[in-house]
Formats: sequence, structure tokens, C-alpha cells
Amino acid sequence: MKNSSKYKRQYFLPPVKCMDWTEKDHVEKAPIWCSVDLRDGNQALVIPMNLEQKVEFFKLLVEIGFKEIEVGFPAASETEYTFLRKLIEEDLIPDDVTIQVLTQAREHIIKKTFEAVKGAKNVIVHVYNSTSLSQREQVFHKSKEEILKIAVEGAKLLKQLTEEAGADYRFEYSPESFTGTEPEYALEVCNAVLDIWQPTADRKAIINLPVTVEHSMPHVYASQVEYMCKNLKYRENVVVSLHPHNDRGCGVADAEMGILAGADRVEGTLFGNGERTGNVDIVTLALNMYAQGVEPELDFTDISSICKKYESFTGMTINERSPYSGALVFAAFSGSHQDAIAKGMHWLDEKKPEHWTVPYLPIDPKDVGRNYDADVIRINSQSGKGGVGYILETKFGLNLPPKMREAMGYTAKAVSDHTHKELMPEEIFELFKRTFENVVSPLSLNGVHFQQVNGGITTQVTSIFNGKEITTEAEGNGRLNAVSNALKKAYNFEYDLVTYQEHALEQSSSSKAIAYVGIRKPDGTLSWGAGVDVDIIRASIDALVTAINNR
Amino acid sequence: MKNSSKYKRQYFLPPVKCMDWTEKDHVEKAPIWCSVDLRDGNQALVIPMNLEQKVEFFKLLVEIGFKEIEVGFPAASETEYTFLRKLIEEDLIPDDVTIQVLTQAREHIIKKTFEAVKGAKNVIVHVYNSTSLSQREQVFHKSKEEILKIAVEGAKLLKQLTEEAGADYRFEYSPESFTGTEPEYALEVCNAVLDIWQPTADRKAIINLPVTVEHSMPHVYASQVEYMCKNLKYRENVVVSLHPHNDRGCGVADAEMGILAGADRVEGTLFGNGERTGNVDIVTLALNMYAQGVEPELDFTDISSICKKYESFTGMTINERSPYSGALVFAAFSGSHQDAIAKGMHWLDEKKPEHWTVPYLPIDPKDVGRNYDADVIRINSQSGKGGVGYILETKFGLNLPPKMREAMGYTAKAVSDHTHKELMPEEIFELFKRTFENVVSPLSLNGVHFQQVNGGITTQVTSIFNGKEITTEAEGNGRLNAVSNALKKAYNFEYDLVTYQEHALEQSSSSKAIAYVGIRKPDGTLSWGAGVDVDIIRASIDALVTAINNR
Repeated sequence: MKNSSKYKRQYFLPPVKCMDWTEKDHVEKAPIWCSVDLRDGNQALVIPMNLEQKVEFFKLLVEIGFKEIEVGFPAASETEYTFLRKLIEEDLIPDDVTIQVLTQAREHIIKKTFEAVKGAKNVIVHVYNSTSLSQREQVFHKSKEEILKIAVEGAKLLKQLTEEAGADYRFEYSPESFTGTEPEYALEVCNAVLDIWQPTADRKAIINLPVTVEHSMPHVYASQVEYMCKNLKYRENVVVSLHPHNDRGCGVADAEMGILAGADRVEGTLFGNGERTGNVDIVTLALNMYAQGVEPELDFTDISSICKKYESFTGMTINERSPYSGALVFAAFSGSHQDAIAKGMHWLDEKKPEHWTVPYLPIDPKDVGRNYDADVIRINSQSGKGGVGYILETKFGLNLPPKMREAMGYTAKAVSDHTHKELMPEEIFELFKRTFENVVSPLSLNGVHFQQVNGGITTQVTSIFNGKEITTEAEGNGRLNAVSNALKKAYNFEYDLVTYQEHALEQSSSSKAIAYVGIRKPDGTLSWGAGVDVDIIRASIDALVTAINNR
Repeated sequence: MKNSSKYKRQYFLPPVKCMDWTEKDHVEKAPIWCSVDLRDGNQALVIPMNLEQKVEFFKLLVEIGFKEIEVGFPAASETEYTFLRKLIEEDLIPDDVTIQVLTQAREHIIKKTFEAVKGAKNVIVHVYNSTSLSQREQVFHKSKEEILKIAVEGAKLLKQLTEEAGADYRFEYSPESFTGTEPEYALEVCNAVLDIWQPTADRKAIINLPVTVEHSMPHVYASQVEYMCKNLKYRENVVVSLHPHNDRGCGVADAEMGILAGADRVEGTLFGNGERTGNVDIVTLALNMYAQGVEPELDFTDISSICKKYESFTGMTINERSPYSGALVFAAFSGSHQDAIAKGMHWLDEKKPEHWTVPYLPIDPKDVGRNYDADVIRINSQSGKGGVGYILETKFGLNLPPKMREAMGYTAKAVSDHTHKELMPEEIFELFKRTFENVVSPLSLNGVHFQQVNGGITTQVTSIFNGKEITTEAEGNGRLNAVSNALKKAYNFEYDLVTYQEHALEQSSSSKAIAYVGIRKPDGTLSWGAGVDVDIIRASIDALVTAINNR
């Protein structure tokens, strides 16, 4: 591409290497979650939510288990002000939920914010100003000292207005555009703010370190977070919070590595809604923990219903490949994946291992309310025996012999390839029946009689082949064998009967059984048939006739 | 959530700490790119691509600049076989492009693969088998030794068949499900394969380390990659390749950190298509490098047209928030973001800095063929003066006084809030004209005459207000001032004329000018008007009348 020289790295490394966090390999405990869906999320919608949608979204967030929810920037818009007042006045905020309000570090905005929160029980007032080099230069035309002063004045005003209100609001400060700010300077500003607030153990301050724009790789951000965590004053009384965006597609890694680096709290949104590429997706963060055995403290057991509500409130769509929530993320179309999943599920049933380890499924789809049939094993021209066999077995109770699965797999693959479409489970079942069950053309039977003679079986078979009826008699070491011999005698069929299996059809109310028969043709390949009947003998004979018809 | 104890971490750490890669903070050079769109991508589609779509997709990949393209698993499906033959027989593969074919390490599949590639100039034969603990136990029921043997036998057969064909095919081996494999064991298998292949400087082997399922955080994967890079035999003749999937939403971080850890090559897809949550998105990887001044060696200068083709070939949609490619990723609806972007763009124009540093825009949207008007500054109820002012200025040539921008911002915000919709630039322009330009009700003028007297100006103004015509005379230190005085005299208006600005309307062919007038009302607030005319005096008077009408 032309122009790559027009860019440079816009981030700043900490003055000392801060990579202690790499000693850890996983998140051990859920952070404090703060939803910013109603703020960052709402502000990034082509059509922002109306009052009613916001109220419903708020209720959804409470149901999921968020204890801290940023409800808006009430001084910036009448709608957000009205929404906040409604929450407070109609008593819609549970006692254990803290609402958070955003305000710039500007006097009239802070004052209006304090008006907006009057009467709320638990409040975090979140004040911010931009600290990055580019914003200082281009937007504010101010020196580091002047920018620091804005933060400090804002912090003072928060403290003063809270005291005047006789309230115990908690405070949060964000050096906005932290990722474009020199870490030493961000630290200086944050510590100056903390000096004003003097946080204590029972009234901690929140220092939020936003990835306003993702400029660096996530380990660089984590090193910045570690640097801050190591050098913030009053650290034991400070909640270090992360607020990743996703411009480089690494918001999740930013958050997780930031937690390892010492952060206590994460601000994000459902499904990563938010400005531009979005905020970090809390659904992914929470279920990433879950998938490693860590309780996420948020409830996504019915992800589909959450998806539906989210889409209706925001007008956004959840991408098919969005981790844990997308329509296709548990899907396996490929034959080898389906085969491995089917075997893994069997292994699970048989061995009952302590932990979930089914191949290609990072978590059990059922744990988030998805189901195997519709979401996991899906059949198209990429699929094979494993998937088709799995669907016939789990959904229709048919346990085909392995080699017959293969034949059915090729049949389904060919139909999908030819029709250029996915096959639904019912279509696969219909295809199986049409192809392999009780096929009576060109050969059919008109009457079969058995007689037991000296430990062997004699049979008289009346069959029709190409319109001609014929009756033949033959012996065999069993009934099926005898019928097979009679048919061979009638038509000089050449094959070996090589596979016979049967089982009851549990899902059928009429206590029918199914028999599977495989015959080997002179060229060595196999041909298959199945028969279904209340009489297992009849089922096996129908299976044989079908296998012959499928030669 | 219930059940979190049913999960455990399924990955294995290297036997020694491998975090040397954290010394680096950015990717310095584009890796070798290999597109797997036609394989992993295609296999994950509800409806796989047909022959024609595959050919077009292949051409697109070549245009973008991929030099290595995995074209399929020709032994697994007739369609993939036919597609490959078509590429070869119709000479559709440029001389500098290598096609890659995937095969399991099974004899009949490898043999069919070799038939499929006959006649191709540059070929990578990519053989794999599953090596993870879970697949060994659950799917293959084989010991480590037996699994290693499968790999070695496959490697031998590749070598033998290549020699027999007198070809110089290159080889790639993947310990599939690497991320669920013990690193020491993966190393043992890869080294055994390399011992067979004996790679040389002019015929390097590729060892591909797939994140088949993303089980760990990206720094863990990077440490596994570093461990492999440090311990692989023939390292200088081995191309270490990455193949990240995205189950934990960290595919991009996996790839980037894997590169820092020593990898030379990345397999991925456009827009992250691929099984489940997809393969790593090469568009994001490439443009992440670009955004840091590193030439990506792939061309995404017309991303919109690539998006359109991709969507038509695959039937997938690109999410609005997909980095660099999504419809909303350059959009700024929020007032403060718009303001900062507008200021940043001005700064860019004025200072002509060496590097791009516009706030909230990680790259210049124009570099990927997006434009500011349609994609960046978008106006809804979250927006403010910055965005509205920017649109009026850049698209319609109106340079409003700062405080008038504010008034226009509120006007637009209110309309968007009220109508619950986004306002397009034309609508904003119309709203501006309707609200602020040449408004003639309730006050309008019927005649204005000037006379220059002793350095001052005398005017005679005939005006209509609420249907009544009146003529008054007044003096002033300029024409506008005189008219203002005449109107005050006629109606006892109380205001101060505080702002006057004018500029030519460059975009108009009729060489008109626009004048802006701001008046301060007794309550201290401002009221605004604009006038457009070929005569600048007339324009300023119309602006004044409008400001009065807008009181």
C-alpha cells in the first residue's frame, strides 16, 4: 500500500519494563464488571435508543448481574437526563446496583450532573479529561500543566459538590485517551486527582485507564497498566479499571492482559457495541473465564434470548462469528470436525470425565442455551459420515453400522453439493428413509414362509422382479440367510451378506425395530439397506431387499 | 453461571518460560501471508462456494497480493478437485503464486492429492494429523508413539511421491490441534517430520502451529511458539507458520504475538471467515501493521470493493464494527469526538505534520478508500457543533462563527432526537438554510437606501413586521450598524450586534457571499442569522433580519 510511511506508533512505553504479569497465564477471578452499554454503546448507534428501550436495556443488564452500570452523560443530552431521572424516580435501580454517570471535567457540566443524580442511592461520578499528546496539541492547545489542572479542578469540584449534597458518591477518574498519553504523565495526573480525593478502604476511588483508541499491541497496554498499578498512590484504596476499545481487534486481549497486570475492574458492553470498532465485548470476556473454569459472576445461560433483546433494543446485529453468541460459532460443517465431535460426545457419555474436553467445542453449547441439533452438527457438502451419523443417532434414534454411516454420508454430501444448500435434520432423515429404508423396487417380496427342519431353516419366497413373480425355496442357517439364498437362487444375484445389525426404535411408540443389512458386491464395494417393522424378521428381510435394490 | 467447575484449562505451558518476545513491542515486517479463504473459509459457509465463485475469489486474492493460497482439500471433495484442476488447466495461477493443498496424513488421500496438483508450477503440500491429548484419547484412541508414526509416515509418503513425480513441491506439516497438545510432544512430532524432509535453504519446510481451538490467552500461545522456534531442528531452513482461530476473540493477538515470538508466516482469511468464530482476519493484521508505519505487502486501498466481492462470494456479511472494514468503524456520532476530529483535520491541514495523528481515527479513512463525509462525521442526537460545523464547512463551504456552530449543533441534535433518525449532510444543509438563512418572517425589508454623510452612514429602511409596513431613518458607523439602528427605532428591539463575519461562497458559481450575524438578547443569550447574496451588504442585512427573526 502507498503511504505506510505516513504513520508512526502513537503509544508510549513505560519508563521501565513492566512484564511481571506474564508470570500468570490465566484470569483467576472475575473483575468488577461495569456495563457502558447505555453510554458508549448508545452513543455509537446510528439511531440511539429511546427512553423505553433504555429502560428495558437497563433491566436486562440488571438481570445478567451487572452491579455497576454507566447510565449516561446526563449533562450532555435531555434524553439521557430524563432517562436517569426516570430510573431514580420510578425506583428502578436495585439496592445492590450502582449507577455511574459520566461528565467532562467542566464546571457547568459537573453541576448539571449532580442535579441529575439527586436521590439515587449508589452513585459513581465518573469525570474525565483528555490527556493524550495529540489531544493536548490539536484539540485543547494546552500544556501538560494546564491539562493536569483541568483534572484536578474537576476532582475538587466533585468532592466539594458531594460534600455539599451530604452524599457518599464514589468517584472515578479517566485520563481519556490514556493509550496516547505518556505513562509517566498519566500517572502524575491520576496521582494528583487521588491526592484531592484521598481514597480510603471504605470509599475507594476508581482510576480508569481507557484504550480510547487501540494504538498498541495488548502486551504493551498491559505493561502500561502494570506500571500504573505499581506506581499509583493509595493503591490499596484504588480500584484500577480498564476500558478497552477494539480498533486493532484486540479489545479482549487488552482486558484480559490488563487484569493479569493488576486491574480490578472492566468497563465494556454486550457483544462489543460501542464507538467505531466497539468497546470490549463482556460476553466474550465472561465466557472466556467460564471456559477455563472461572465463575464469571454474570449470567449468560440463555444467550439467545439476550441476543434477541440486544438486537431489538440497539438495531445492531450480532455477527455470525461473534464468540459464544454468533449463530455459527458452535457449528461444524466439516466431516472430520463432525466426526471428532460425535466421538467426543460418545466419550463424554461413556467415561463421564470430570471436565469438558469435546474437540472443536470450547464450551458445551447447552451451557449458554444452545442445542446440538440446530447449532452444532450441520450438514452441507463439506460434511461426512460423522455428522450425518450423529444426527440420525441423536435426533432419530438410528444407530447405523459404521460403514453404512459412510454410505449415508456420501449420499447426503452429494445431495447438498448438487442442490447447493444445507440439509436440515428432517431432510437428512427423509433422505435416509428414501434411500435406505424398505426400498421395494425393482425387487419386492410377495410372501415368505419358513419351516424349521433339523436345526436349519427352509423358506419359500415369492418375489417380484421387473414385474415377474417367481417362487423359490432354499435353506439357510438362519431365516435371513435362507431368504437370501432363495433370492440368489431366483435371480442369480452375486453378493455376500456381510453385515447385519438391529436395534429397537426407542423413539417409536409402536415398538418397532430397525435392521441394517450390508452386502458385498463382486467388485468388493458394499451396498446397504434398512428395514423397519414390528417383526424383527420382517425388518431384516426388508433390509436385505433394500440392500439388493441399492446394488 | 452454573457448571463453571465442569471446565478446566486445556492447554499446556512450555517446560521453560518463553517470554523473550515481550522485549519487542510491535511487528516490524510483514510475515509471509497465506490465504486459507478457499479452505477453512469455504468449509465454514452454510452454503459453500460454487466453482465460479471460487475462481473469482482466487482472482481477488491474487489481486490483493497473496503469494501463497490454500486452494482446498482436493482429495476430500469432487468440487475442490475440479476447482484445482480448472486453476491448473486454464492457467489461472500466476507464476509468482504458490498454491497450497491440504491433506490428512493418510495414504489414499495423499495419493489423490498428488494427482490433483499435477501440472501446477508452485505447490505446497500441506499434511496434518491431530496431536492433541483430547483427540488422541477420544477420536483416534492412539498413543503418542502411534500418532507420531502417522505424521512420519505421511511425511515419508509426501517425500516419496514428490520424488516419483520429479517435482519440487514444498512441504508443510501441521500438528493439528497444536493448542491442545503438550509443547514437548508437538516439538517431538515436528522434529521427526523434519528429520524425514531434511529441509534446506533453497527448499525450506513449513511447520504450521494452528490455534485449532483457542484455549489460552495469546501470550501463552506466543510462549508456545517461542518454545517451538527455539527448539525446532533445522530452524534456519524452517518457515514457522501460524494459523490462529478466534474462539476467545483473540485471533489477531495470537498472530501478532506469535510473530514477535519468531513466526515467519500467517495463515488466515479475509474478514476472519472460517470455522466457528473464524480464522484470524488478515485484513486487520495487515492494516494494524500499516497503522504503525509497516508496509503490509497486501493491498487494501479499496476495501469497500473487496468487502462487496467477499460478501457476494461467501454470502457472509461483514460486521459494522469489523476493524478497518466495517461500515461504522470510522464513524463518529459523539459531539466531542467530532469536535476533536474536526480540530485534528484542521491541524493536519495547517501544520502538515510528518505523521497522521488525528484523534479517534487510527488511520486516514481515505487510505482504504473510505471518505470523510459519508463514513466519519455522522450526525444524530449524540452529535454536536463540531460535527455539524465540520459537515457544513467541508461539504458546503460554510465556515460558521464558533458560537453559531453551537447553535446549529443544538438545532440538528434536537431534530435528530425528535425524529429519531440520523441526519444526512444534505438534510443538515437544508436544516441550516431553513433555520438560519434569509429568514423573512415575521420581519422583512421592503427597501433600504444609504447615504454617506460626514464619514458616517444614514439609512432609510422600509420594513414590514406582522403585516405592518413602516419606514424609519437612522445613522450608524457602518451600513449594517445603520440598518440595525433603523430597525431598533422602528420596533424598539433590544439587542446588541455582537458578531459579524462574512466569506465568499467558493462552491457557488454565482460568486455569492455569505454573512453571519449574531445578536445578544437582553437575557445574555445569542441569536443567529445568515444572509446569502451577490451583494455582501445585502447579505449582511439579510443575516441581521434573520437573527432578529430567530430571537
